Amino acid sequence: MDMIIKNGTVVSPTGMYKADILVDNGKIMAIGSFENVKAEKEVDARGLYVLPGAIDVHTHLAAPFQGGISADGYMSGTRAAVCGGTTTVFDYPVQHKGQTIHEVVNEKKEICEKEACSDYAFHCAITDFNGGEILDEMEDAVKDGIASFKCYLVYKKEGQMADDGMLVQLMMKGKELGAMINVHAENPDLIDVLTEKYASEGKLSPWYHYMSRPEFVEAEADKRVVHWATHLDAPIYIVHMADKEGLLACLRAKAEGVPVFVETCPQYLEFTCDVYKREDGRNFVCSPPMKGEESRQALWKAVSDGMIDVVATDHCPFMSYEKDWGKNDFRKIPNGCAGIENRYPYMLDAANRGRISFERAVELCASNPAKIFGCSNKGTLTPGKDADIVLYDPDLDFTVHIENMHSDYDHTIWEGIQMHGYPVQTYLRGKLVYDHGEYVGKPGDGNYVKRDPVMR
Amino acid sequence: MDMIIKNGTVVSPTGMYKADILVDNGKIMAIGSFENVKAEKEVDARGLYVLPGAIDVHTHLAAPFQGGISADGYMSGTRAAVCGGTTTVFDYPVQHKGQTIHEVVNEKKEICEKEACSDYAFHCAITDFNGGEILDEMEDAVKDGIASFKCYLVYKKEGQMADDGMLVQLMMKGKELGAMINVHAENPDLIDVLTEKYASEGKLSPWYHYMSRPEFVEAEADKRVVHWATHLDAPIYIVHMADKEGLLACLRAKAEGVPVFVETCPQYLEFTCDVYKREDGRNFVCSPPMKGEESRQALWKAVSDGMIDVVATDHCPFMSYEKDWGKNDFRKIPNGCAGIENRYPYMLDAANRGRISFERAVELCASNPAKIFGCSNKGTLTPGKDADIVLYDPDLDFTVHIENMHSDYDHTIWEGIQMHGYPVQTYLRGKLVYDHGEYVGKPGDGNYVKRDPVMR
Amino acid sequence: MDMIIKNGTVVSPTGMYKADILVDNGKIMAIGSFENVKAEKEVDARGLYVLPGAIDVHTHLAAPFQGGISADGYMSGTRAAVCGGTTTVFDYPVQHKGQTIHEVVNEKKEICEKEACSDYAFHCAITDFNGGEILDEMEDAVKDGIASFKCYLVYKKEGQMADDGMLVQLMMKGKELGAMINVHAENPDLIDVLTEKYASEGKLSPWYHYMSRPEFVEAEADKRVVHWATHLDAPIYIVHMADKEGLLACLRAKAEGVPVFVETCPQYLEFTCDVYKREDGRNFVCSPPMKGEESRQALWKAVSDGMIDVVATDHCPFMSYEKDWGKNDFRKIPNGCAGIENRYPYMLDAANRGRISFERAVELCASNPAKIFGCSNKGTLTPGKDADIVLYDPDLDFTVHIENMHSDYDHTIWEGIQMHGYPVQTYLRGKLVYDHGEYVGKPGDGNYVKRDPVMR
Amino acid sequence: MDMIIKNGTVVSPTGMYKADILVDNGKIMAIGSFENVKAEKEVDARGLYVLPGAIDVHTHLAAPFQGGISADGYMSGTRAAVCGGTTTVFDYPVQHKGQTIHEVVNEKKEICEKEACSDYAFHCAITDFNGGEILDEMEDAVKDGIASFKCYLVYKKEGQMADDGMLVQLMMKGKELGAMINVHAENPDLIDVLTEKYASEGKLSPWYHYMSRPEFVEAEADKRVVHWATHLDAPIYIVHMADKEGLLACLRAKAEGVPVFVETCPQYLEFTCDVYKREDGRNFVCSPPMKGEESRQALWKAVSDGMIDVVATDHCPFMSYEKDWGKNDFRKIPNGCAGIENRYPYMLDAANRGRISFERAVELCASNPAKIFGCSNKGTLTPGKDADIVLYDPDLDFTVHIENMHSDYDHTIWEGIQMHGYPVQTYLRGKLVYDHGEYVGKPGDGNYVKRDPVMR
Repeated sequence: MDMIIKNGTVVSPTGMYKADILVDNGKIMAIGSFENVKAEKEVDARGLYVLPGAIDVHTHLAAPFQGGISADGYMSGTRAAVCGGTTTVFDYPVQHKGQTIHEVVNEKKEICEKEACSDYAFHCAITDFNGGEILDEMEDAVKDGIASFKCYLVYKKEGQMADDGMLVQLMMKGKELGAMINVHAENPDLIDVLTEKYASEGKLSPWYHYMSRPEFVEAEADKRVVHWATHLDAPIYIVHMADKEGLLACLRAKAEGVPVFVETCPQYLEFTCDVYKREDGRNFVCSPPMKGEESRQALWKAVSDGMIDVVATDHCPFMSYEKDWGKNDFRKIPNGCAGIENRYPYMLDAANRGRISFERAVELCASNPAKIFGCSNKGTLTPGKDADIVLYDPDLDFTVHIENMHSDYDHTIWEGIQMHGYPVQTYLRGKLVYDHGEYVGKPGDGNYVKRDPVMR
Repeated sequence: MDMIIKNGTVVSPTGMYKADILVDNGKIMAIGSFENVKAEKEVDARGLYVLPGAIDVHTHLAAPFQGGISADGYMSGTRAAVCGGTTTVFDYPVQHKGQTIHEVVNEKKEICEKEACSDYAFHCAITDFNGGEILDEMEDAVKDGIASFKCYLVYKKEGQMADDGMLVQLMMKGKELGAMINVHAENPDLIDVLTEKYASEGKLSPWYHYMSRPEFVEAEADKRVVHWATHLDAPIYIVHMADKEGLLACLRAKAEGVPVFVETCPQYLEFTCDVYKREDGRNFVCSPPMKGEESRQALWKAVSDGMIDVVATDHCPFMSYEKDWGKNDFRKIPNGCAGIENRYPYMLDAANRGRISFERAVELCASNPAKIFGCSNKGTLTPGKDADIVLYDPDLDFTVHIENMHSDYDHTIWEGIQMHGYPVQTYLRGKLVYDHGEYVGKPGDGNYVKRDPVMR
Repeated sequence: MDMIIKNGTVVSPTGMYKADILVDNGKIMAIGSFENVKAEKEVDARGLYVLPGAIDVHTHLAAPFQGGISADGYMSGTRAAVCGGTTTVFDYPVQHKGQTIHEVVNEKKEICEKEACSDYAFHCAITDFNGGEILDEMEDAVKDGIASFKCYLVYKKEGQMADDGMLVQLMMKGKELGAMINVHAENPDLIDVLTEKYASEGKLSPWYHYMSRPEFVEAEADKRVVHWATHLDAPIYIVHMADKEGLLACLRAKAEGVPVFVETCPQYLEFTCDVYKREDGRNFVCSPPMKGEESRQALWKAVSDGMIDVVATDHCPFMSYEKDWGKNDFRKIPNGCAGIENRYPYMLDAANRGRISFERAVELCASNPAKIFGCSNKGTLTPGKDADIVLYDPDLDFTVHIENMHSDYDHTIWEGIQMHGYPVQTYLRGKLVYDHGEYVGKPGDGNYVKRDPVMR
Repeated sequence: MDMIIKNGTVVSPTGMYKADILVDNGKIMAIGSFENVKAEKEVDARGLYVLPGAIDVHTHLAAPFQGGISADGYMSGTRAAVCGGTTTVFDYPVQHKGQTIHEVVNEKKEICEKEACSDYAFHCAITDFNGGEILDEMEDAVKDGIASFKCYLVYKKEGQMADDGMLVQLMMKGKELGAMINVHAENPDLIDVLTEKYASEGKLSPWYHYMSRPEFVEAEADKRVVHWATHLDAPIYIVHMADKEGLLACLRAKAEGVPVFVETCPQYLEFTCDVYKREDGRNFVCSPPMKGEESRQALWKAVSDGMIDVVATDHCPFMSYEKDWGKNDFRKIPNGCAGIENRYPYMLDAANRGRISFERAVELCASNPAKIFGCSNKGTLTPGKDADIVLYDPDLDFTVHIENMHSDYDHTIWEGIQMHGYPVQTYLRGKLVYDHGEYVGKPGDGNYVKRDPVMR
């Protein structure tokens, strides 16, 4: 036996209980009470919570975007991930016109083989319908374990938008294949109209980033997507939900059995659009923008009630000098913020303070993502699954500073946020990769996660 | 080690996996892969599913009702339960005017100590508000592990109805105490008006049992209950949901975070009001009655989507001679049907045929009831919990006949129903009590389940 | 020709236009442009609006209530009415146990024959179902022109409440007869629970009148009523709507074709529950109480959009000494406020300031009430109808003072309210009864309005 | 005095009453009871209903479309109109790329001056946003009495589609100007996807015209339009509503005060998609197509309840040889059907049979269109307005045959429809233009209707 983690409190999506965990060969062998078991390594988890490693299904690593390139590459991004208890990272490579899905993914896979500090998977963002050939490629991709794809309903001018025709064809194909279609839901035309309007009035501060994509601009796209999912009975996964009206449309549809899945991110739970009035407002610019307090509260409520399925990050940080490009013109600020190292601690902090249960935190960050995206060996501490394990000290206080983060960027919107409780160790398939503040693994530790289709 | 169950497929609410289970002292010691563990008893579960024992949170045993007395007493009822894989049974003793909660419950507890073949618990049905003294009694009751109570919104003439004033006071107290209020939701006045109307027209066949309590009569009460739960933010549990309109009102409320919990029963999933046109329609008379096909389908959809929380039985069978009282006058038919031995097999059959997942079946019949009603040691196969275990053979075909049931009644609405897959063994806290068709335990095996309050 | 009103601007529900009006024998003879017509009396209405006399379908005159008696009798109440441009008044006599509808109404009719200064009609408030005999009486009543009845869903303790059984039977009978059922919708049990709760805490100021019947207590009853109307497809008229949630439930139902009619009153449009915090808060106590600002705005919106059908008054004033009974205990304040002379001017003022159109004001106060309650000869300025005519000066400023009102009470909640525009003359069937501030008619001028059933 | 119409029953949107009508100089002078009035012409309308001339706000005359040209030009179309009691016709000229609004309209106006047999007005269909210059043109157009514009949300491939950006900018400008934006609401992408799908499967019969634009394809666009109207608080008018889901979304929004106006057409009230299975199915091809029976009934309900604002025709007939182009390929059938002469009789027939009231028929076909589109002198029989008058014989039976229609096309979807009651005379501004089956006016009788902006 390689390892026994003793005396901890195991957290599963359905309960918490005292138990030891046996690990061998990178797998969880057994969970329970073991008196005479010997293992090469004994870890005493007394006073600690033993959690499944988290899965971040929404990141953009080394991503070229709006003239910048996101500041975390595959190495530093996945390093930061494991230091925050996240052991599997999904990246979103974006198809260039003419590229096949395999080309898009393989390019990134090769980099990850050398650089990844966590396990990794890919959703492919599709921008070129290619007369329908993409539908055939999807079949092959699913066979290779790529069981999810993304559509942008925005970025019309940039030529990356999927119109409703492409969207519904992907959804119908996704349904047939057991592949999820992820969608960035905002209305591109309204963004353009409002952006031009404010620009023409000389209103270019970061506040107008929000004003040009307010609640109802996001809500329209959410509701349209729900409409198609309802009538096609085809699954859809809405990424980074940030507004109340759209959220409620999704939740009511879910209540009636429509296969709509909803993701939100910590930035929408913590901040409101008021951040765009701050001196450093540009650093908070992301798409969709944070919304009003009413939306923030509705998101928390749905997170707490279990109606939101996933909390992911949309991790896409930019360096300060890049953010500064838009100091005086919000249109020039690269969109995106950091979060890969902060999400799991943030949600666990919410649990530790009693806002949600620990079971829910684990569900949102680990077991639901695994289930929805077909990571059969991940997501819960269950005999036979990968030994992706986080030890969490509920009494440890931690304050986020850019200095104690493990990314490559030079600032963070989470600066100064105080957590009560924090991860102290992360094991990736049984190997210790994070230990009390230090990254102790090595690039290349991460494996590719081949995923199963999920018929819904 | 008392027992090892080897090579089975364990079913939890969040997944299925191959694992062995170690049992000692009536508890689950560990789950996983064990090569060298020795136990007094080895059970080979190859080819079988290993499930948590189910919990039936809605039964009426030895219950006097409408001139009859339900045909299963505490002995035969709980015996039938374990033979159907249900290891914990909740009974609904009804308070007589003037009785205290303790009096109501203790009377039944004493009987159960001698007779119960399964573990058992009680919800107390409150009919006498007693100027508010009942609220104080609730506090004591919760301390004694009775963490749920019931209100009838019907039975106005019988003096058992809770009006809205009593209902909301129980709900507010329940919220404060972490106790659930269960509610039978139909509108009593409409039932009376319609019953009188049909009686005055000489329409007295069983079909008019349905016609006098149609969909909208149930829906009104459901919606009213949802209204109070919404505005008081107080939890409520609606028993035996049977209509679509009320159901959807509940589901939409749940979607928006209202603490409404919904139970349905297999009879509402299997039958429609058309049964009341059958020759033996009187045998299907229960309250609420089965509804139209649209309701039946909506219930299945919500069961499958995980929006319904619990499937229980409302087990309350009557002998044929009692049912016959109302052969020519539906008003004289004692209301109630059998189900205690059929529910878990029925839901597992649905899973086995692919209508729902096995995880969902376990959630609806075991883990959710345990969680909602504070049975901390029950509901899932988890180290440290009671070893209430069911072995299920997915390849065994079984047809329900009154002869192969283990109750005391003389007919069943489930007669002739064919199941693909059936339980082959039931263990109650590690003790084998059902084995391939035979009850092998003894009355008195059952323990009282002291429950924890649940703050929601 | 008895009279010509020349050069005015006629206001109909569908438009405003310059025209002269010919009156003969108490009837409108013709409308249009007349050059050579001679009449006994010529009225120059240049600069004035020529409006139909208003109908107030909700008053309680000389009504015994909660130990007091409403301060306006049939004489003073109808006198005040015509001085505010209201030429037809509906009173709500309440059935005592055992009384027949005819007894209830005839008693009042006799008084009115001598005293009434306006035309008058009656809705009978039914409190005694009398084993169903009331349904037969309704048939007779409709034949006598009493084509509407009222139910109280409140006043349970006082024995005046209609339960759901009585309510639905009245609704079904009303549908059959073309008679409207009016309903006071609040939940009686919740009022009792909350009243007792606050009383037990010593909270007895007028503010707790509101706190014991807050928004959701009214909304429940509204929604229940809508439920019955929906499923029985039977018309219902909800009086004095005062809360947003219930209102929206009604409006959505109306949108889908449910025959729900909604009345509100000026006090709910002008005031919010904040009045109960005032020193003279007791004077504003009425049932239902004024609600929060959100409700007030929703009511205005629905009034302006034409989704509310009627604005009436619930005129039921009490003398200051009566109101004072509850200075220190809201339970002892007789419920009711004045409004009979203020409503039409108030709504016309709203039109004059542009908040609603004049057409809408006339629709809400005159044409809709006539149509809904079967007053075939009233409600619009149309050839052949009664010459109930109001001349309105849009430039006249008027401030309400108890001294310039024509009622018998000694204070008014409208004290100090400023109107821009005010009626200058009222004609009752061609006879001038109000002239520039003075009542110039005589008691007994008023006729009984026999109404037609309306099949909906 | 030019004319007196005596002894008829006048129908207004708010009531029916016996009265005579005086007409002079093309205007209504007075309405009422006149004993000694002499006029040049006396018309005895005993036994007849006297109605306002109807307004058809949706026609396509001499319109090039899908390779054909609609079979009624300005002469024959308006001639048919007056023969069906419609005295004002709105045409929809479509802007070609680069054209100004004035160019579009003036071209048609010139033709109408010579040809029009009824009064006429124009909505301009805008297809070229022209970098926003169109917004300035709208200001001028409104000054010239063109107070409404149209957007196509379909015809994307044809380059006529307005995307959401153009749509909302028109709506905001329309709100500012008091001009209505009319919208054809279907989702273009779904139509394309479904059309291609069926074509690729060789499914090309007229039935697939419906299958490629089923209910949910229309509903999506309806709901999107409602979303913008809600959040911009800007009026929108949805033409030819044909599906239930979209309709209900509109009605609920209306109930809550959103300025959404809804038009439907007789073909959606009379027929369902089943017509596309008929041998002559191609003749019924129009866009949107007729839908299922559930939609048809929902439309009738909303028409009857007064929740739909207007019934217009979308008159756009094609000759049989043109329809035949698509005998074997629905994509080649020019879209459009006849109706200009049938709508008013059809709705009056519904009134005469008791399905709706005559008041409602007049509201839907005359007074509402006048009000919504700013025809201040049209729409009701009111002193001062144009003497556009229809005499209707409620006892005259009439069967539609292509031979007794007054259009230029060679077949009609209304063939064989039987009407109980039919117009016998039409007066256009006092001039008799239709008399018992014969057109008796002359081309050029019609005047241009300069419209007023309407602030909503």
